Amino acid sequence: MVSNFALGSGLALDRASRIPLYQQISDQLRRQIAQGFLSDGHFLPPERALATMLGVNRSTVVNAYGELAAQGLVEPRVGRGTQVRRPSEASELEANLRALPWPELLLPYAESVSSRVLRDIVALCSRPDIISLAAGIPNPDFYPHPDFSTLFQEILTEQGGHALEHCPPEGHHPLREVLAARISASVPGHVKVVPPEETLVLSGSQQGIYLVAGALLGPADLVITENPTFLGALSVFRAFGARIVGVPVDEQGMRVDLLEEIMERRRPRLIYTVPTFQNPSGVTLSLTRRKQLLALARAYRVPVLEDDPYSDMYFRPEAVPPPSLKALDMAEGGNQVIYLSSFSKMLFPGMRVGWMAASPAVIERALAAKQLIDIHTTSLYQWAMARYIQRGLLDKHNAAMRVQYRIQRDAMAAALTHYCGDTLEQNQPNGGFYLWCRIKSGESGLALLERAARYNVAFVPGGGLSVPGMSECEPYIRLNFACARPEVLEEGIKRLGAVLKVKKPRPARPPTALTHSGQDLKPLV
Amino acid sequence: MVSNFALGSGLALDRASRIPLYQQISDQLRRQIAQGFLSDGHFLPPERALATMLGVNRSTVVNAYGELAAQGLVEPRVGRGTQVRRPSEASELEANLRALPWPELLLPYAESVSSRVLRDIVALCSRPDIISLAAGIPNPDFYPHPDFSTLFQEILTEQGGHALEHCPPEGHHPLREVLAARISASVPGHVKVVPPEETLVLSGSQQGIYLVAGALLGPADLVITENPTFLGALSVFRAFGARIVGVPVDEQGMRVDLLEEIMERRRPRLIYTVPTFQNPSGVTLSLTRRKQLLALARAYRVPVLEDDPYSDMYFRPEAVPPPSLKALDMAEGGNQVIYLSSFSKMLFPGMRVGWMAASPAVIERALAAKQLIDIHTTSLYQWAMARYIQRGLLDKHNAAMRVQYRIQRDAMAAALTHYCGDTLEQNQPNGGFYLWCRIKSGESGLALLERAARYNVAFVPGGGLSVPGMSECEPYIRLNFACARPEVLEEGIKRLGAVLKVKKPRPARPPTALTHSGQDLKPLV
Repeated sequence: MVSNFALGSGLALDRASRIPLYQQISDQLRRQIAQGFLSDGHFLPPERALATMLGVNRSTVVNAYGELAAQGLVEPRVGRGTQVRRPSEASELEANLRALPWPELLLPYAESVSSRVLRDIVALCSRPDIISLAAGIPNPDFYPHPDFSTLFQEILTEQGGHALEHCPPEGHHPLREVLAARISASVPGHVKVVPPEETLVLSGSQQGIYLVAGALLGPADLVITENPTFLGALSVFRAFGARIVGVPVDEQGMRVDLLEEIMERRRPRLIYTVPTFQNPSGVTLSLTRRKQLLALARAYRVPVLEDDPYSDMYFRPEAVPPPSLKALDMAEGGNQVIYLSSFSKMLFPGMRVGWMAASPAVIERALAAKQLIDIHTTSLYQWAMARYIQRGLLDKHNAAMRVQYRIQRDAMAAALTHYCGDTLEQNQPNGGFYLWCRIKSGESGLALLERAARYNVAFVPGGGLSVPGMSECEPYIRLNFACARPEVLEEGIKRLGAVLKVKKPRPARPPTALTHSGQDLKPLV
Repeated sequence: MVSNFALGSGLALDRASRIPLYQQISDQLRRQIAQGFLSDGHFLPPERALATMLGVNRSTVVNAYGELAAQGLVEPRVGRGTQVRRPSEASELEANLRALPWPELLLPYAESVSSRVLRDIVALCSRPDIISLAAGIPNPDFYPHPDFSTLFQEILTEQGGHALEHCPPEGHHPLREVLAARISASVPGHVKVVPPEETLVLSGSQQGIYLVAGALLGPADLVITENPTFLGALSVFRAFGARIVGVPVDEQGMRVDLLEEIMERRRPRLIYTVPTFQNPSGVTLSLTRRKQLLALARAYRVPVLEDDPYSDMYFRPEAVPPPSLKALDMAEGGNQVIYLSSFSKMLFPGMRVGWMAASPAVIERALAAKQLIDIHTTSLYQWAMARYIQRGLLDKHNAAMRVQYRIQRDAMAAALTHYCGDTLEQNQPNGGFYLWCRIKSGESGLALLERAARYNVAFVPGGGLSVPGMSECEPYIRLNFACARPEVLEEGIKRLGAVLKVKKPRPARPPTALTHSGQDLKPLV
């Protein structure tokens, strides 16, 4: 048994490397096979001999050869050693060699079960026969696209290519000015004026959550959220490896009375809250609790991330929500609230423009990261938004949508009473987009959704909006009343009522067996 | 001396916490002061007594009291102990309490010296009297904004709000189809057709670099790049904590002959390359080296990130660059190249639409992260780009720009010969945007830039485009000939020539003393 292995032909081990020695050996041998230095029928050196030569344990070489054998590159021959495989198999081998093992190369990633389930829901909602009450979108009948078509044309005619140049990463200055003015106007007593420099234009407020998480959260750091809460925030916090503690909500919003003990004992790095017309529960944090929350955050020196896309969507003049946490904090001279909002709920989902208002140190950090991510937000949209706001069109549009959404909410609420009065318990939101309903039978929202798919209606199950490890919201569902005309909402609720009337069957298939068919996925939330 | 400190009023230590014990103590005392439990004039317990009570070293309590004293909340009284401060100072104290110490809360961030210097350059370039040859932008005189104005209006009229809805996170399907067709057409022998599912629409190709780095690079992982290289890539790799090894370039592109040893010894996780009309050196990797690079990457199982924004910008028909690494890899059945390109260099910088073509596993991972970052890329721009390409307008525009850029390059090259023939050595690129010039005197590009600012001309110094720790490119400058009309370029080079003719003075002020004035910053690269 003669080894025709070319000694010294490049087999070198790096003992400082984090790559295991056996893998360094197999990698190098694989390359030699690929490059033809070790051709068909050749024998590798005996394991013990190579181990001695390289100064490693014999088991290291055994492992290396084993890996090559598993990849079909070599074959153990009883009593003869380890042989490079025959030429007839070469092309297959070459194909294997060319295919990078991507799953091994990609870093671990925290994809949750719920995100996979939600992908299925998204696929489900793209079926044309489905009435989807799932997506967190406004009613397409009222998108102000004629206004924006006019604005785009006006700006491009007037500015020429100037509106298509790079804009500053922190945002188009006139837009930052109007955003700063809006925040300033909301501060009680107008004691604090926010300069444009304390704002940052974002490619949607989702980006703000990502940037803040990246700036504050290391692995295993703790974040406090409401439970249930916005899926997009849960996903970001999980992706950064944070642990999440959910605080229950009641009619007054987050149970701030439960917060102090959590803060005392668990030292969170961030409080994330949707205080106004909360997604999905629809509740609004009361003024008293807002002040308590700020006092606690101050006492424990914990930043507050306030996500506020819905506060303009109140239904009655007397239901104007309390000032934002940001406004209250500023009125008291604080700098601890990072405020996020977005135009995508007010106007249309494709308006990927949101903004942040925060302390200069936070703006600076978020800006540095944003530049790496997308350089800046679409300039033409920023030009258009600045003018749309300056001309009072946003306020006018919001006023009209408040009336419309109240009509839609009333229609859905009435349909729920009519079709699901025995089976669902609904909340009474004063604004926002969502009815949050408890399934009286205790069935999980996810199980109900599976059944509902056959009745051509979809929604978001509470479990998908839950802090990991908390099951309280599983028998809930989120219904968006903002997304469609009353008659569509009514038909959707009628179908839902029909599903709920059917005796709950034994679970027939696992949740992931929804109609996921690989078609294009639409964002949900 | 009596301590009126309320024992047991909430002072509890969490020994499992990563927060130091002294800080836990000071945090809790601070809260008690803020909430009035410890009011003005009260004495804290003696250090030794509190230490015994809490079971900690006396020094822990000393540190805690010291921190409170530094914050002005307590004052040591000689012989009497540590006293909470007087009411007259309360308002100032309260303000201190309200201000979160953001710099302590934000995670460490790798901002390099060069990125600060580049901020200064950006500020400099925003001066109206400056001729900037720094930014990596096309000539605004040729932005096709009338075409896009028409397309936006056409799409919004025809599609109504549909074009303003969410689009799938992976991209508008018709755009993915044309992108996939473009890549497929580039594969030698057309042996491989890329399905649209192996593409991902990005908010600019910068986003692709970010997503790939996030998927592959852990702290201290190694990335190979050309040296010099694209600043936006260097910044991303640094932000992820990666180490960067730069490979020099010559007229044939990256010195692939130097690559094998680096790969053998240092086990990189990623090779990042701009193989065609490289930024900033202008060189193009030869076909032979492309094949060698792919063979090495395959042998060592290292993914290749190919950044390809310039390959359509060749100046002569005979200078059509070789097929992309992606196309060559696909022709051989490989899956190891992640391809990025962008429309922002072809059309206008505000067109924040780029794309990736890669193995499905990579697309899936990048997509999952992209959804957290911006949900999806601006839908209307995607609709418009799909039609712009389908109608042949992109190819027509690129053909026109090839002619125009050749004129501009020739103008700049001639001006350089005329005004800087003795002082600069220029390269001879066959495409792309940049002339890369060596300063014959050996002066650093950064020092020259400081002097040039007074002559109202700007460029990017080589040091800003260098792999950290490599100084070879410091006596180089990058000049963009794509960004302006010939007469502007000539005037810029004339000013540059005047600077270079002046005897190099002693450095008068540090590089960061450029005219950074806090005004809005524009992206540079």
